[in-house]
Amino acid sequence: MSIINEIKKGNISSVIKSLAKAENVSVEYMAAGIVDGTIVAPQNKIRNLTSPCAIGKGLKTKVNANIGTSSDVVDVHVEIDKLFAAVEAGSDTIMDLSTGGNIDDVRRVLIAKCDVPFGTVPIYQAVISHHCAKKPIADISVDELFTIIENHAKSGVDFVTVHAGLTRKSYDALLQQGRVIDIVSRGGAFMTEWMVKNDKENPFYTHFDRLCEIALRYDMTLSLGDGMRPGSILDATDRAQIEELITLGELAKRSHEVGVQTIIEGPGHVPLNQVVENMKLQKLLCNGAPFYVLGPLVTDSAPGYDHIVSAIGGALAAANGADYLCYVTPSEHLRLPDVNDVREGVIASRIAAHAGDIAKGIPSAIERDKRMSRARQKRDWKAQIECAIDPVKARAMRESSVPEEEDVCTMCSGLCAVKIIDNLKNDK
Amino acid sequence: MSIINEIKKGNISSVIKSLAKAENVSVEYMAAGIVDGTIVAPQNKIRNLTSPCAIGKGLKTKVNANIGTSSDVVDVHVEIDKLFAAVEAGSDTIMDLSTGGNIDDVRRVLIAKCDVPFGTVPIYQAVISHHCAKKPIADISVDELFTIIENHAKSGVDFVTVHAGLTRKSYDALLQQGRVIDIVSRGGAFMTEWMVKNDKENPFYTHFDRLCEIALRYDMTLSLGDGMRPGSILDATDRAQIEELITLGELAKRSHEVGVQTIIEGPGHVPLNQVVENMKLQKLLCNGAPFYVLGPLVTDSAPGYDHIVSAIGGALAAANGADYLCYVTPSEHLRLPDVNDVREGVIASRIAAHAGDIAKGIPSAIERDKRMSRARQKRDWKAQIECAIDPVKARAMRESSVPEEEDVCTMCSGLCAVKIIDNLKNDK
Repeated sequence: MSIINEIKKGNISSVIKSLAKAENVSVEYMAAGIVDGTIVAPQNKIRNLTSPCAIGKGLKTKVNANIGTSSDVVDVHVEIDKLFAAVEAGSDTIMDLSTGGNIDDVRRVLIAKCDVPFGTVPIYQAVISHHCAKKPIADISVDELFTIIENHAKSGVDFVTVHAGLTRKSYDALLQQGRVIDIVSRGGAFMTEWMVKNDKENPFYTHFDRLCEIALRYDMTLSLGDGMRPGSILDATDRAQIEELITLGELAKRSHEVGVQTIIEGPGHVPLNQVVENMKLQKLLCNGAPFYVLGPLVTDSAPGYDHIVSAIGGALAAANGADYLCYVTPSEHLRLPDVNDVREGVIASRIAAHAGDIAKGIPSAIERDKRMSRARQKRDWKAQIECAIDPVKARAMRESSVPEEEDVCTMCSGLCAVKIIDNLKNDK
Repeated sequence: MSIINEIKKGNISSVIKSLAKAENVSVEYMAAGIVDGTIVAPQNKIRNLTSPCAIGKGLKTKVNANIGTSSDVVDVHVEIDKLFAAVEAGSDTIMDLSTGGNIDDVRRVLIAKCDVPFGTVPIYQAVISHHCAKKPIADISVDELFTIIENHAKSGVDFVTVHAGLTRKSYDALLQQGRVIDIVSRGGAFMTEWMVKNDKENPFYTHFDRLCEIALRYDMTLSLGDGMRPGSILDATDRAQIEELITLGELAKRSHEVGVQTIIEGPGHVPLNQVVENMKLQKLLCNGAPFYVLGPLVTDSAPGYDHIVSAIGGALAAANGADYLCYVTPSEHLRLPDVNDVREGVIASRIAAHAGDIAKGIPSAIERDKRMSRARQKRDWKAQIECAIDPVKARAMRESSVPEEEDVCTMCSGLCAVKIIDNLKNDK
């Protein structure tokens, strides 16, 4: 039985209690949020996470890090390093998006080492097995698709992305619209090729109940993917994107009704002046289900710095309703991320999440800034470094440039404004 | 005669024409904006800039980089490197905030090498000369203050920050309010000590006409500093900050009336949910004068990453009325920036400015993203790198990880979504 249905029967697990405690909310609030679908706590029944997390309304904004091989870069040891680097940097969840090497093996190794919720995109594996066998995507049978999803569930995956809302209608909307970049979601491209070549509807849409049955059996959270997410800010908030979002809202209602925890995925490339509207639209169309955004990236023009581009969009998104930020690394649009990119990406997303949490009034967020500010007023450097989102980097930078007067820094040296006013007030 | 008064007499210089061309606005628009005080074009009469810029309403958001020594770190060669790195990375202006070594010498060397508008904060020099002579700040005479400002003007400085709006009243407001961090502006701290110790009003406030006379003589732009800017998000938008802003609005009206180009400086540490309001308030209180913000930093908790923190706030600020972003580097709150910090800081601010410009509808901004997106759809890597805000880093990252199929990248390798849909559409 899923956590939603357990709570409905009056069973409040110790996991829910500890999640409530971690978020500084009441157990009743947490349980009610899970039941009404505004909160999810992804955890496969067969897993026993040491660091689970809850995602959704009234909670701290969470961060996900995507790791995984590609056919050009296959080294499971590097992926393990990325996993550890991401979790150490504070990522709340991990997704394995491997498309190179033996997908089952990579997943098995990573999931065993992952103490936080672990997600996958099962369609990738279906496509890769056909791709490697030089067979077209269109040849994948419906049974094969569902078998792979069930295999992921069996292997302990806590949440899966499934692009169930990308229908013939949304692809027609895309063609009629005329985008600058058609589709940038891999899952979206796979489903589109399958639909068009077979002249059939998306099987995850037509057989959505079958998907829910598998998810329910393992209490595997469904993350409904946005295959039509814009890949250029010029395509943002267009008819294809919103058509799919409407469908995702309908599907989320169905999965939630049978007790499957459900997340909605969102864009993508969105200009700053459309971010707030996108957040509000999702909440209205999807019954307040948790919103998991990729970015948003507020410009297309800064490859090499897309972690910064995404932090801008992600902060505004989090402040206005996004519950869960998928990190973007400096290497986005250029190459598979390396371990350092992963670390930089997680920190940038955590900064965005934290800035959003301050704005949306999550009490623990402003408390951190209060501690930091008090440490600055006192020029207590030890406390400042302890309060930092990345104490390692803060310490290294401070130690690289030692001031003569130890209570200031080398920016202002003895002319520290804080010190001047402190002395002035103490004089009197 | 200043540029404002020249235009009023009907003289439209070639500089105004080339600035209009660079911004893709009409000469009439540019001239009218300078006359009505919503645009400034900082350039000292004795300078002949090869890269001047205009800042203000309807124009691209500009970026400033602060460089300069401190008493702990004095090396003019490093400062020259920072100047070149900043301009090469696209900084529109430079401010020399030196407080270490021979201030006149450092300024002379830097200004001679600086082809973009060059700014200073003359009060620093007044304080340092007293500090080095072990004399209190309070001993600085009013004549000395104005002599130093005139010396900066004579040496060719294009714009100066003067904290003329920090009055006894605003300091009283600060004391009554009870801040977490009192004052973080160096100029603000200096003026406060001077006022309190002498029990006198701010001489730049009481002798504001004298300041305007000097500025007018050289057509040196006044940047009215915000000595009360919050240094913690917990102190943002408080009575001290807004009290000073009201005064800055009054002073800007006076300086503008006599033909002095005037900018207003703004915060500082501001939570994301107060950024928009701060921008609107400044425009209302300061007659639409250009707004020059430091950040804003949307959290206090990320030392080592304050370029990202500021990019978040700066993008939202730019989208909502800020005209000019002072960069913040990764080393903010930790040490004097090095050359690499300067470069990172400029790029982060340029990303913020660009994201803001897209949102506020500056046509050239979205054109860049359109070119980038078209290059992505075609998988034209040469064009993508050329369109990048930092082509050097984009190229290096791409070349560090070479895909087998040269039209994709190692993130998705042969499973590139764009390529799949491209092939699918070309099949038909």
